[in-house]
Amino acid sequence: MTRKELVKNIRAKQSFLCVGLDTDIKKLPEHLRHRDDAITEFNRQIIDATAPYCVAYKPNLAFYESLGVKGWQALEDTLRYIREHHPDQFIIADAKRGDIGNTSKLYARSFFEHLDVDAITVAPYMGEDSVTPFLGYEGKWVILLALTSNKGSHDFQLIEDRDGRRLFEQVILTSQRWAGPEEMMYVVGATQGRAFEDIRRVAPESFLLVPGVGAQGGSLEEVCRYGMIADCGLLVNSSRGIIYASSGEDYAEAAGREARKLAEEMASHLATYSR
Amino acid sequence: MTRKELVKNIRAKQSFLCVGLDTDIKKLPEHLRHRDDAITEFNRQIIDATAPYCVAYKPNLAFYESLGVKGWQALEDTLRYIREHHPDQFIIADAKRGDIGNTSKLYARSFFEHLDVDAITVAPYMGEDSVTPFLGYEGKWVILLALTSNKGSHDFQLIEDRDGRRLFEQVILTSQRWAGPEEMMYVVGATQGRAFEDIRRVAPESFLLVPGVGAQGGSLEEVCRYGMIADCGLLVNSSRGIIYASSGEDYAEAAGREARKLAEEMASHLATYSR
Repeated sequence: MTRKELVKNIRAKQSFLCVGLDTDIKKLPEHLRHRDDAITEFNRQIIDATAPYCVAYKPNLAFYESLGVKGWQALEDTLRYIREHHPDQFIIADAKRGDIGNTSKLYARSFFEHLDVDAITVAPYMGEDSVTPFLGYEGKWVILLALTSNKGSHDFQLIEDRDGRRLFEQVILTSQRWAGPEEMMYVVGATQGRAFEDIRRVAPESFLLVPGVGAQGGSLEEVCRYGMIADCGLLVNSSRGIIYASSGEDYAEAAGREARKLAEEMASHLATYSR
Repeated sequence: MTRKELVKNIRAKQSFLCVGLDTDIKKLPEHLRHRDDAITEFNRQIIDATAPYCVAYKPNLAFYESLGVKGWQALEDTLRYIREHHPDQFIIADAKRGDIGNTSKLYARSFFEHLDVDAITVAPYMGEDSVTPFLGYEGKWVILLALTSNKGSHDFQLIEDRDGRRLFEQVILTSQRWAGPEEMMYVVGATQGRAFEDIRRVAPESFLLVPGVGAQGGSLEEVCRYGMIADCGLLVNSSRGIIYASSGEDYAEAAGREARKLAEEMASHLATYSR
């Protein structure tokens, strides 16, 4: 999906919500657990209920890999379902991959050709030749970790070099030499608050994928105030707050309700800040 | 596997060779390609031929993931084969994972409980809470990326902070507060040559996993001269140079021959440098 199409969808739905499909088999509603396709069925219901209020889905691969062959099957079935029934959704494989060139090339083939997702999250530690193999696929995106939402983000991402530039700023500055804002986004945690001002100084035009609203405690209002740009430039992710809104048979309905709430808040921030 | 057991195996075999099972379906010998279990069969033959000369196997997950469900099945079958037929081998899942705490916990469960490997490679960018969920499993290891073998390692890993400490040194120093040399190793590329001296200054006792000998051009002699310690402290990986030594029906025999050559060289370096 191109940036233009993504922005068109955001404008049409007045939402920049990404729903995180972090589907944990141990947290599925009782009545689904006996099913062979429990995870896929759970996802299908969540997707149908939330699709009117979001523009993207982001399965985190750890949840699928942890189930081995069966989990991988559930991932493929879920992705196919989105493609067939909700083709306007942007799909992000949250994989945080990154390896030497010939291996990253394989990952790119796997995610962009075989699974046909729109974007993959990539860890920057190994540098240019671990990232560039993901580039050059038309309408496909790399989403590079910059300033993450977790506590450990302070361990290395904030280290300053001799000129006072922090590692996450170096990652953003350097990686913009590899790809422009039409095919590279950055992960910036919602918990980072005013750091969004610093991010916008080094990445004024890039889309940011923002996890950490909800269970992790980030503020949507702050993210928008400091991070939103003219064409929005944000995809804000919520996982647990939506998909586990209820643990009963009404889980999909409850997920839809939470997604709608977030979308309504987003519409008002779009009116205020995307100018 | 504990450090003591690993070192015992190295002494017994006079080898610290790790064979990288980077099995690419496109590079399989002609006569195997029609088989449904082509990858597993290729691996089985390679393993049987090389096991006398190595102490570890390292499948890089990209190669299996790129085939989806089928690849994941081949990975599980390969790991089971090693466990059943060569139980003294140390198994490294080269996954380069790393995510927020609750997700890393899932990866840990997946790799240490479900797949039952001895070690997993982890990317350090997200810091402490992305790494610690992998710790505390008895006999299991985290292998943290420090100074990798690829060209892109220069982009971020060499950035110096205000005190002149490079990022890879910070990663090693900081992570030693999370775990000792009985459950954490570091990835250092063979192509880094004398940087092994610097590594040994900050990680005098840690085992190092060293890719980059062979196809990538690193020197085994240099790695040993600057990196070997009393109990060896090295696992040197070769992938393509061994598993694709021949593309004909004699591929396993050729792989065994290459592994034996490396092991002989290793035995002589052990005699010289592990004192």
